[in-house]
Amino acid sequence: MKISVVKNILEANQRIAAENRLKFSGSQVLVINLMSSPGAGKTSLLERTIQALKNQFRMGVIEGDIQSTYDAERIGQTGVPVVQINTGGACHLDSNMIREALGNLDLQTLNLLFIENVGNLVCPAEFNLGEDFKAMILSVAEGDDKPLKYPLMFHESRVLLINKIDLLPFCECNLQLIEERALKINPHLTIFRISCRTGEGLDQWAAWLGQEVRRRQTFRE
Amino acid sequence: MKISVVKNILEANQRIAAENRLKFSGSQVLVINLMSSPGAGKTSLLERTIQALKNQFRMGVIEGDIQSTYDAERIGQTGVPVVQINTGGACHLDSNMIREALGNLDLQTLNLLFIENVGNLVCPAEFNLGEDFKAMILSVAEGDDKPLKYPLMFHESRVLLINKIDLLPFCECNLQLIEERALKINPHLTIFRISCRTGEGLDQWAAWLGQEVRRRQTFRE
Repeated sequence: MKISVVKNILEANQRIAAENRLKFSGSQVLVINLMSSPGAGKTSLLERTIQALKNQFRMGVIEGDIQSTYDAERIGQTGVPVVQINTGGACHLDSNMIREALGNLDLQTLNLLFIENVGNLVCPAEFNLGEDFKAMILSVAEGDDKPLKYPLMFHESRVLLINKIDLLPFCECNLQLIEERALKINPHLTIFRISCRTGEGLDQWAAWLGQEVRRRQTFRE
Repeated sequence: MKISVVKNILEANQRIAAENRLKFSGSQVLVINLMSSPGAGKTSLLERTIQALKNQFRMGVIEGDIQSTYDAERIGQTGVPVVQINTGGACHLDSNMIREALGNLDLQTLNLLFIENVGNLVCPAEFNLGEDFKAMILSVAEGDDKPLKYPLMFHESRVLLINKIDLLPFCECNLQLIEERALKINPHLTIFRISCRTGEGLDQWAAWLGQEVRRRQTFRE
């Protein structure tokens, strides 16, 4: 009984995700589902990335939070369009929430859309939103055992951004061990070592992401 | 329809939590449900706390993880009895999982039982396990906006441990702001500033906790 309810929820989510996917590809917009634990740096990464790419691409953000609009206000200051989703207690975004949010975004005007998921290293990985790919952030302050303990998110992501590397001298965290463990779960992961505080590594991330946006547009046009 | 399913789950959880509660109080054991984001320091706090109190009390631990037994192995090295729960994907413990785990613990031999929940700042706060109280850890690396964005956990907890204060010089995090925001949500919170790395603040926490254990036993005997 319990299993059948969960299965129905995931099936319904998958169906609406496919509809979102069609809208995204029809508008030639690259869509990234950004996930992490609370406080790993999702909003900071978005602020930095928008700053780096704002002269090249038209970007938008869908902000997912349980309640409040703090992150949307931060993103709003960058000047890009932002839509807030409040999940009202739910610990992840689902494809129906994204479908609703799309009513407030003009996809035709965008090249790149970020969806900032609820801060949670577990459930967001289970819900396809229709995105092109999932990217996850891990803060070095969380420790190098996280791939072992939360493997699904590492498995589902195409990109792993290891953030707050400026804290490495002060944490008991082995960067190589994170990478080895993550790649064992998912050998296709593209990994960036970054610090949203110092800016280290963000050029490489922005360059890679820019290529992805351009490749997608070439491919579709 | 969706709401009624959720309501049934929470009602069933509450009923079994009440059964667990009876077992706990019958055995005069103080039970703490320990919650936090991934990597905030739950297992490190338990290692430190067990070390500090092992000559005064008989302790046990129930370890909640999605999969793996890494944390249980760490706790096992302290010499206290530990039972691992693997939720198999679920992002929180529920009272039925605890009821099952209690088959592997002799409550009569314990004064203090820690339940380490799954690393997640959202859903664990919704599920009563039958504990005496909930305690949460926030790492300063997560930032001072967390009470604003994840208020339920702050609301439900009796104790807030602000961990990794040794990282404060390297983070943009205002400790006073965390405390003000947390106390606005829950004026009854008891707050400790700690570092499981340097040991700072752990004496105060252990002393407070020792009082709680003794008070409970006096009250019950």
